[in-house]
Order: sequence, then C-alpha cells, then structure tokens
Amino acid sequence: MAENAPLVSLNTSALEAARLLATHRLSGLVVIDERGQPDSVLPASQVVRFIVPGYVQDDPSLARVLSESMSDQAAETLGSRRVSDVLPLERPELCVVRHDDTVIEVAAIMARLRSPLVAVMRGADMIGVISASRLLKFALGPR
Amino acid sequence: MAENAPLVSLNTSALEAARLLATHRLSGLVVIDERGQPDSVLPASQVVRFIVPGYVQDDPSLARVLSESMSDQAAETLGSRRVSDVLPLERPELCVVRHDDTVIEVAAIMARLRSPLVAVMRGADMIGVISASRLLKFALGPR
Repeated sequence: MAENAPLVSLNTSALEAARLLATHRLSGLVVIDERGQPDSVLPASQVVRFIVPGYVQDDPSLARVLSESMSDQAAETLGSRRVSDVLPLERPELCVVRHDDTVIEVAAIMARLRSPLVAVMRGADMIGVISASRLLKFALGPR
Repeated sequence: MAENAPLVSLNTSALEAARLLATHRLSGLVVIDERGQPDSVLPASQVVRFIVPGYVQDDPSLARVLSESMSDQAAETLGSRRVSDVLPLERPELCVVRHDDTVIEVAAIMARLRSPLVAVMRGADMIGVISASRLLKFALGPR
C-alpha cells in the first residue's frame, strides 16, 4: 500500500522543495530529520506564503500593482532559505504506521489525526508514504 | 493558470466523491452548491473518517482484529451518504479568485487563508481551480 514519495530534509533548500511540490503536483512533502526519520509535513500552501512579499501580506491591495514576473524574486527568496526556515512554527504532525498495518488500522490513524499523509515504517526505516486518496483507493477496492 | 478539476455537489453520493478522490489522487474536491457556485472543499482525509467504523474510532486497538476486506462495508457506508453528510461541520473555506488575477494576487489570497486550493471565477461562472502546487509552478517559472 505504501508508495514512494520525494523526501526533503530540514536542510534541503526551500527552492528545491518548492520545485518538488510543483513538479510532482503534491499538496505536501515529507520532511525527514538528520537521522532519516520522518519529522513533519511541509504543506505546499505554506511554501506559497514565502513567495508573497511582506508588504503585500500587510496590504493585499498592493498585489494588483506588482509585475506579473515574480519568478526571479520568488526563486531568490526560496533559494536563500532552508526547509526548516519555512516550516510552520507548529509543525504539522506526521503520522507513522507500520508496513504490516491493515487498511483499517491506517484509516483509523489517519482519521484520528485528520492527516492527509502518513509515513510507513519497516522497523526503523521509512519505506514510503500513504496519502488519504491512496487509502481510499485500497479501502474501496476495484470498482 | 486555472485547470479543470472534478466537481461534486452537496447532493453527490459520498461514494462517488471517494472514488473521484481515489482515481484522480486528489487531496480534496471542490464542492458546488445547487446554483453551481463554489461552496467548500471536501478533504480526502475527511472521507477516510467515514470508512472507519464507530467502534474502531472509539477503541483503535479493535482495528487490529478486523478483517482486511473492508471494501464492501466502506462502499456501503459511503453509498448511503451524500457529500453534505460527510463535510466537516465547520466547512473548510474555499477561496475564490478572478480569472484575470495575477500570480501574486492568487498567492496572496492562498497565503492569507492558508488554502491548498482556490476556485477561479469568470464573472458568475466557476471555470477551474488552482492548487498550491500549481501556483508554485507558475510562480517559479520554467527551470
């Protein structure tokens, strides 16, 4: 049931994380710590917050007068930061399940923590992730 | 920048919504009201909550003893409900942007409401959605 997903570490460049989110069309990335253990989830919407200049966040009406070409500025802003710099202060909890947990066990954990993504561990190693949409696919079975 | 996405109405069967989430690997679906206007977002993780039997939610240790084959039960549970029945009581707000808003305007709205998905309107018509990952793709431009 687990599937591979791109991982980033707390030290990965925020620009690289943003490109992974964009390329793989992900709503969030699993962040691992220095020991390779799952740490948290970096939501794509959180990265978006960092490409909006501070003066626009303070006064959204200023967005209208900004040039459409923001890519250089966005890349520069994200390139100077690491994943640990852009994670929310209260990091979204990353649920962990075991590789031999059943569909209903994973669903119960996802449901309890209202989490869209869980990390799958085999012993001390993270072997993949399960998204809520993937869980639904397995729970509902072939049509 | 807007792209098509499957829509469901408040009256759509929750089972159909679950299958759309699973098939399109979506973390959420846009829900429209009876006038075709965007109403809210139905997160995949919310649907997962409904396929976990109540007695397992009350005592997660019971999940271990359940049979792995839960697909019939899950389909029956969702098939008897509508989208309006499975939406959270506090419906996640769905941000709305105009089709001629700039990337930075969309980013500012997404950032302010920490929303992973916005509906794009042309006049009174919804013409598509923009996800946070898609916004990042446009904000960062070609590599």
